[in-house]
Amino acid sequence: MDSGQLRELLAQVKAGAVDVEAAMERMRHLPFEDLGFAMVDHHRALRHGIPEVVFGTGKTPEHASGIVASLLKRARNVLVTRATPETAERLQREHSDAEYFPACGAVRVWRDRTVLGKGKIAVVCAGTSDLFVAEEAQVTAQVMGNEVDLIPDIGVAGIHRLMHNRERLSEARVVIVCAGMEGALPSAVGGLVAAPVIAVPTSVGYGASFHGLAALLGMLNSCASNVTVVNIDNGFGAGYVASLINRL
Amino acid sequence: MDSGQLRELLAQVKAGAVDVEAAMERMRHLPFEDLGFAMVDHHRALRHGIPEVVFGTGKTPEHASGIVASLLKRARNVLVTRATPETAERLQREHSDAEYFPACGAVRVWRDRTVLGKGKIAVVCAGTSDLFVAEEAQVTAQVMGNEVDLIPDIGVAGIHRLMHNRERLSEARVVIVCAGMEGALPSAVGGLVAAPVIAVPTSVGYGASFHGLAALLGMLNSCASNVTVVNIDNGFGAGYVASLINRL
Amino acid sequence: MDSGQLRELLAQVKAGAVDVEAAMERMRHLPFEDLGFAMVDHHRALRHGIPEVVFGTGKTPEHASGIVASLLKRARNVLVTRATPETAERLQREHSDAEYFPACGAVRVWRDRTVLGKGKIAVVCAGTSDLFVAEEAQVTAQVMGNEVDLIPDIGVAGIHRLMHNRERLSEARVVIVCAGMEGALPSAVGGLVAAPVIAVPTSVGYGASFHGLAALLGMLNSCASNVTVVNIDNGFGAGYVASLINRL
Amino acid sequence: MDSGQLRELLAQVKAGAVDVEAAMERMRHLPFEDLGFAMVDHHRALRHGIPEVVFGTGKTPEHASGIVASLLKRARNVLVTRATPETAERLQREHSDAEYFPACGAVRVWRDRTVLGKGKIAVVCAGTSDLFVAEEAQVTAQVMGNEVDLIPDIGVAGIHRLMHNRERLSEARVVIVCAGMEGALPSAVGGLVAAPVIAVPTSVGYGASFHGLAALLGMLNSCASNVTVVNIDNGFGAGYVASLINRL
Amino acid sequence: MDSGQLRELLAQVKAGAVDVEAAMERMRHLPFEDLGFAMVDHHRALRHGIPEVVFGTGKTPEHASGIVASLLKRARNVLVTRATPETAERLQREHSDAEYFPACGAVRVWRDRTVLGKGKIAVVCAGTSDLFVAEEAQVTAQVMGNEVDLIPDIGVAGIHRLMHNRERLSEARVVIVCAGMEGALPSAVGGLVAAPVIAVPTSVGYGASFHGLAALLGMLNSCASNVTVVNIDNGFGAGYVASLINRL
Amino acid sequence: MDSGQLRELLAQVKAGAVDVEAAMERMRHLPFEDLGFAMVDHHRALRHGIPEVVFGTGKTPEHASGIVASLLKRARNVLVTRATPETAERLQREHSDAEYFPACGAVRVWRDRTVLGKGKIAVVCAGTSDLFVAEEAQVTAQVMGNEVDLIPDIGVAGIHRLMHNRERLSEARVVIVCAGMEGALPSAVGGLVAAPVIAVPTSVGYGASFHGLAALLGMLNSCASNVTVVNIDNGFGAGYVASLINRL
Amino acid sequence: MDSGQLRELLAQVKAGAVDVEAAMERMRHLPFEDLGFAMVDHHRALRHGIPEVVFGTGKTPEHASGIVASLLKRARNVLVTRATPETAERLQREHSDAEYFPACGAVRVWRDRTVLGKGKIAVVCAGTSDLFVAEEAQVTAQVMGNEVDLIPDIGVAGIHRLMHNRERLSEARVVIVCAGMEGALPSAVGGLVAAPVIAVPTSVGYGASFHGLAALLGMLNSCASNVTVVNIDNGFGAGYVASLINRL
Amino acid sequence: MDSGQLRELLAQVKAGAVDVEAAMERMRHLPFEDLGFAMVDHHRALRHGIPEVVFGTGKTPEHASGIVASLLKRARNVLVTRATPETAERLQREHSDAEYFPACGAVRVWRDRTVLGKGKIAVVCAGTSDLFVAEEAQVTAQVMGNEVDLIPDIGVAGIHRLMHNRERLSEARVVIVCAGMEGALPSAVGGLVAAPVIAVPTSVGYGASFHGLAALLGMLNSCASNVTVVNIDNGFGAGYVASLINRL
Repeated sequence: MDSGQLRELLAQVKAGAVDVEAAMERMRHLPFEDLGFAMVDHHRALRHGIPEVVFGTGKTPEHASGIVASLLKRARNVLVTRATPETAERLQREHSDAEYFPACGAVRVWRDRTVLGKGKIAVVCAGTSDLFVAEEAQVTAQVMGNEVDLIPDIGVAGIHRLMHNRERLSEARVVIVCAGMEGALPSAVGGLVAAPVIAVPTSVGYGASFHGLAALLGMLNSCASNVTVVNIDNGFGAGYVASLINRL
Repeated sequence: MDSGQLRELLAQVKAGAVDVEAAMERMRHLPFEDLGFAMVDHHRALRHGIPEVVFGTGKTPEHASGIVASLLKRARNVLVTRATPETAERLQREHSDAEYFPACGAVRVWRDRTVLGKGKIAVVCAGTSDLFVAEEAQVTAQVMGNEVDLIPDIGVAGIHRLMHNRERLSEARVVIVCAGMEGALPSAVGGLVAAPVIAVPTSVGYGASFHGLAALLGMLNSCASNVTVVNIDNGFGAGYVASLINRL
Repeated sequence: MDSGQLRELLAQVKAGAVDVEAAMERMRHLPFEDLGFAMVDHHRALRHGIPEVVFGTGKTPEHASGIVASLLKRARNVLVTRATPETAERLQREHSDAEYFPACGAVRVWRDRTVLGKGKIAVVCAGTSDLFVAEEAQVTAQVMGNEVDLIPDIGVAGIHRLMHNRERLSEARVVIVCAGMEGALPSAVGGLVAAPVIAVPTSVGYGASFHGLAALLGMLNSCASNVTVVNIDNGFGAGYVASLINRL
Repeated sequence: MDSGQLRELLAQVKAGAVDVEAAMERMRHLPFEDLGFAMVDHHRALRHGIPEVVFGTGKTPEHASGIVASLLKRARNVLVTRATPETAERLQREHSDAEYFPACGAVRVWRDRTVLGKGKIAVVCAGTSDLFVAEEAQVTAQVMGNEVDLIPDIGVAGIHRLMHNRERLSEARVVIVCAGMEGALPSAVGGLVAAPVIAVPTSVGYGASFHGLAALLGMLNSCASNVTVVNIDNGFGAGYVASLINRL
Repeated sequence: MDSGQLRELLAQVKAGAVDVEAAMERMRHLPFEDLGFAMVDHHRALRHGIPEVVFGTGKTPEHASGIVASLLKRARNVLVTRATPETAERLQREHSDAEYFPACGAVRVWRDRTVLGKGKIAVVCAGTSDLFVAEEAQVTAQVMGNEVDLIPDIGVAGIHRLMHNRERLSEARVVIVCAGMEGALPSAVGGLVAAPVIAVPTSVGYGASFHGLAALLGMLNSCASNVTVVNIDNGFGAGYVASLINRL
Repeated sequence: MDSGQLRELLAQVKAGAVDVEAAMERMRHLPFEDLGFAMVDHHRALRHGIPEVVFGTGKTPEHASGIVASLLKRARNVLVTRATPETAERLQREHSDAEYFPACGAVRVWRDRTVLGKGKIAVVCAGTSDLFVAEEAQVTAQVMGNEVDLIPDIGVAGIHRLMHNRERLSEARVVIVCAGMEGALPSAVGGLVAAPVIAVPTSVGYGASFHGLAALLGMLNSCASNVTVVNIDNGFGAGYVASLINRL
Repeated sequence: MDSGQLRELLAQVKAGAVDVEAAMERMRHLPFEDLGFAMVDHHRALRHGIPEVVFGTGKTPEHASGIVASLLKRARNVLVTRATPETAERLQREHSDAEYFPACGAVRVWRDRTVLGKGKIAVVCAGTSDLFVAEEAQVTAQVMGNEVDLIPDIGVAGIHRLMHNRERLSEARVVIVCAGMEGALPSAVGGLVAAPVIAVPTSVGYGASFHGLAALLGMLNSCASNVTVVNIDNGFGAGYVASLINRL
Repeated sequence: MDSGQLRELLAQVKAGAVDVEAAMERMRHLPFEDLGFAMVDHHRALRHGIPEVVFGTGKTPEHASGIVASLLKRARNVLVTRATPETAERLQREHSDAEYFPACGAVRVWRDRTVLGKGKIAVVCAGTSDLFVAEEAQVTAQVMGNEVDLIPDIGVAGIHRLMHNRERLSEARVVIVCAGMEGALPSAVGGLVAAPVIAVPTSVGYGASFHGLAALLGMLNSCASNVTVVNIDNGFGAGYVASLINRL
């Protein structure tokens, strides 16, 4: 039925009855396909102009493999987040150009490397323990067409390091800051730059960090007004929104 | 001492020893003034290119009046958030062009109305109870030089209303969504638009809403990837970040 | 002693001293049997007119096997929830018609397939990760005599998918909605249908989902008035209550 | 525009081009009207076949008065929940048949008293302190066309009282149970009746009741399988869903 | 030094300078011995007139073995709680009369079986899953000289079972009630008996049980006035206090 | 109907068909009376052998007055807890021997002063701020027939004061300990005495005391094995259980 | 009795039987006096060498007046924290040299102004809203004999202000940092100075600050190793401990 | 660039243009080195005058080995906290004088054993289960140049043990108290000594200890004014701050 709608719409475009812009608009809300275990929405890419994304958590290697194969029939870039090593190995075996990032578990097929961002995205993290989240943000922002400047190990308790990187930070159009424990870094960075700051609390810490809750609350209460927050360890979300902003 | 630094710097500018761009950069991290009760940072505006903001909570009318008078000596736009009616009345008495927004408690002196945003910011809210937060976002985004399209009363349980406003939403460059109770609206809006969505949980609700916690958690877990979150009832923060993004 | 009561009661029925309806009523609150490790209440089925249910969590294969064998002496349908693979294997070995559902861990002996429900029960879930809960709801509702329509992968961030299934949803007499992360789907579905909606928060998510707490709070605060909620991951409870309602 | 759609649709109905059933279906997702402060959805009643409901929290008497007047132009029954005494007084002054229920704050205009429910709804509460919630459930269920049997003051610690009311409970087609403190009553009632039980935690209690959280958690963990839960103090929601079920 | 104090005290007792009662009193606060890893307080037994107790959690088999050996030099009854299977095996090898209770992990050396309690202690639990806690309470109360009546599988949702055991419950001088999930059983039992009820929340449950928190809060808010509460899964504490009460 | 049952039963007693002990037993679960707003259970006293108790929270003076008047027709001792000053004044006006305890809000009619406890109950509190809870415990225990020894202002940070009162504490058959803030006192007292200790967390404190949560958690985790816990500020419950124990 | 002990001890000192040092030691754990409502411990000052402190919360003006009068008979310095304006007014009327600090509610009688601290204590706060806590710390540290340097309005989002005050901070022997909202300032200060930092979370903030919980968790997770934490808003405790450290 | 700054600075020192004290001050905020995975700040030691510390959590043996090797090129003392056994084994293989403390996971290279503390630091813990935290505090304080007196197994429920150690406690200049469960020990110790007390909540406990939350809250609410708190299980932080204080 959906395909019927789509065929009819394209016929109208061909016939000149509907112009391209109008067709784009109407296609935004149309079809999807049933693979049996999940409806893969091939139009998400069309809607947002971004690569296909597969959330790897809870998916078996077979399951993930099937989805990725289906997506690669029509998309050039595919990102799988939080893949298990088994899933990653299978995907790399099946697609020779698939990259694997073991710290964050991302698998990336990156065939269309057009730069879409208008500037640089800085990804800052507080400690080496937070790198797995920063990496997810970096991998995501890159596959969405952005130049990324990764600045690891800048802590609030070592302000001189922060000051030292002030210029690099100021050059970014959007800044992503990943921090666990007290999650204070986004406030400090937010006070130094004029750009929007996307804060990612990480689950790094112990005791009263309560698996990232302390960092999350800290960031939500940031005294810097240019800070917004995503879920704990959600490097993907931060990279995604930063990419949207960097295209504006 | 600070003024000494500033004088020296400006002299160098005048003498041509330092060019304007470099002076701007160096001034970003320099002076502030002591009013006795608070160091008002006159350079925040310079740093971010935005109006002066005074957080009204916990400040007496006298206190607020003093800060605003000091700020208006060198700034054209001043925003006071969460002012009490007493503070608002005093500020309106002292500054004839001060507007008062009783729902959110904002007082605004808006003298420089230059449009700085490159597009429109949509501010959506779920129910009339959430309007006080949407208003704070609107007032903030306007004073920061943006055209704002306020779309109230679009709930998740009335999806047809949401679909009805799809076009208006699609025209915005940034969308702010304010919602209390289950806080589901940002996910629904996020799935409809390609723009970045800033979600503001509100404290509207009762019982298991736990003063906005339910909405906050819901938004942080949004399945729409283009959503970031600010603090509960933080309409100001949402308007601020949306303005930064809309200038890019 | 109980059996004495029961014998006496049945004798009275036989003799015409107590009519069947009255005997049914009195039997509702009578006997049970001691198996050593647990009192299996053989009259639960009689009371509610439903199959016997064994909660598998924390039971050894031997333990579960003993209870199931005892139950099958007088019940035609038995449902074991959350069985381990070991328990499932043993039960399938012992009862050749036992089905095993590995996603949710249910084992089902379904001998009496009389349809008792007066309409269809729709079971909706937001993502493939939530399928294990939806499956438990489906398995339960089926064994209690209902036709079930499973509609997977309908997310709030993809409203067009939801609209696409509006008619299927409208045909159901009761709707079960399983969703993790922000748990917004029940509100959206609740706004589309006139039927009662039973919301099941799932533990799917990470970080600030707090193992299903975010979804649970979201559903309890639903702005759709036709929504009630059961425990996190409690597909069984949702299927059970939906069945009771569908018989009315 | 919406009115245009509606006019066109009705014209088609008049012309015989669209039959009544199809028109009903299409109207379900169509129009609403802008009152300035809130879009009152006149079709909610049409969609669910129920009275208009206005949530009174945070609305001024003027605001509530305007909405109610607008609604009464086309609806016979209107329910305002959680009205302040001022709002109630104003509504009673403006509509001579408006009833006021001070314990729960409901104001009810009940002109169409057709019985729509197929049986009786029992509303049980644990203590006199919980009556305000039970009353809200009762008022709601009545205005939606149901006979309600209110059974107050049945506590878990006085099981003999519960047993004493067993027959009354068994006669209900749906049972609503309101309880604060430990919230154990729904489990006890759920074990006695075969009907669906809707549990309403109340904020009654102190200390570790945490404003109803203890009761809420207790009910979500009920060992009785026929129990679903609504938000703390949400008597309205319970009455609403019970009414939907009782019409089946 | 301590032993010096003790010797002197006993000499005074022998000489008649201090009478036995006074010596007992003074000895209550005197000596202990250093085993290197822990100061074993040999006088705890003397102070409370109860067996020695070793908390097994976090102790290696060697560690536990050393403490038990030291204790058995002067105590006839020793209870080790939460021992690992390895610790249990070692203790049984070293002390042929040591009993092991694998459900709760207790190891018991019970040489002095004098009955000290003045009546019977009933231990009730809601489901077979709660038996591990009930067993710990039973093992503790027995070794402290009490007759224990274990009544398993009495749930609130099956009130007829509870009523069925009313007499057995009424015969107890103290009642211990272990329950997970909604933790409602102590309220129901508390309403039936005149004796003090010690409620033990268990960690049995899932989702919103939050590892026993729901049951704990429920019990603390019990509407039965004769209920006090101990920590989640603390069968030992319940058995201990019940024993103290039963000696009065 | 109930009265019918009761009359019949008493007739049987008179006729010798039922002996007194059996009648007592059967009466435990029988009648109550409907006052319109609440079923006052006149047999609670009979069941537990204790005075009538009215929970004052949320009851108007009229409401409370009606219940008390009804109770005093057949009970000699009545305790109203948490009465407002208005309720207290009305009750004292209506019953000249009613005592009022403003700190805890109790109103007590204490006509039968028979001593029922076999020993003394000590009520300890940490600071003068906790006295309102200790007073409620004292008032309750007294009206239930116990001699009470109140020991205020014994804090954990002043151990010498605790040691100083060791003897008084040792003389009690049951000890009630009320403490806010860190709630450490029950552990310290529990280590000094052999009697059962009932711990009452109080809401005294600020910040991270979270209205008594800190004290509550502390007491539940007490390292002294003779400690059980009641709800925050529940002096009544502590006095009640202590009285039951002291009668044994 | 206590006074007897004290008299005897002093007689022994006079007679040379006990030397002064030994007497000091023994007096540490001796007497106190009963004022009826509270045992005022006159030896606390002697034990810690500090002024008498009265916690004003929950004390009536009469009550506070009585305690202060009693204390001033033997102490030169008395600090009342969190006094109501009524209490403050009464104390100032009764003691002409009593100072009142309305922001934090402290009343101070400061007669012995000996400097006991070996260096300076810096008290830093993030915003003017936090001044009430900083003031309490300052007032406390001063009356305990310390020079205090108050540095208000140094936020993490304005790092240049922090750097600007680096030298003042480095001159302090102990630094107290008061901050609400995200509570990040102690980490930033802790990274700049070598001295111990005492962090005081304040209740300043809204929404997800949860009355200071966000700041508290942030400080407990500080990545600066020289930070310890006290309770929310506990300026007194911070000033007290800082004084103890500054005397070393 | 940094090295350039440093070289220039040292040249100035050599030339006498900058004196040593000034150079020390300026060096405090200067250089660090990039090892690829983490910027090791070689000046932390210089800033605080303390050994280098490596947080072992989440670091592979290779990673830790690289950092330690780099640090030992210029530092004599290095402490690795929370190392895995694999990391520990590798470090001991590579550095023959590295000590390993398996309870807390610390690895210590302690070549410069100069005593820097001016007195003794007492480390107290409540039970043998808390020893792993006490050990981390001890290891840290020793490597920072302090004499440490470890006093294990002093519980609040055994006050006589505490009194017994009063003198040892009084001899310490700073006291560290580690306690899990109810966390009451710091209050008791704080009341006995005049020194600052650093409280370390431990994760020891079960049920309502919530992994150390109960102890943490207890300590934050301590009624002893000389207590400050660090994160759960943070023995390192306590040892660190105690060392800073003991040097004053």
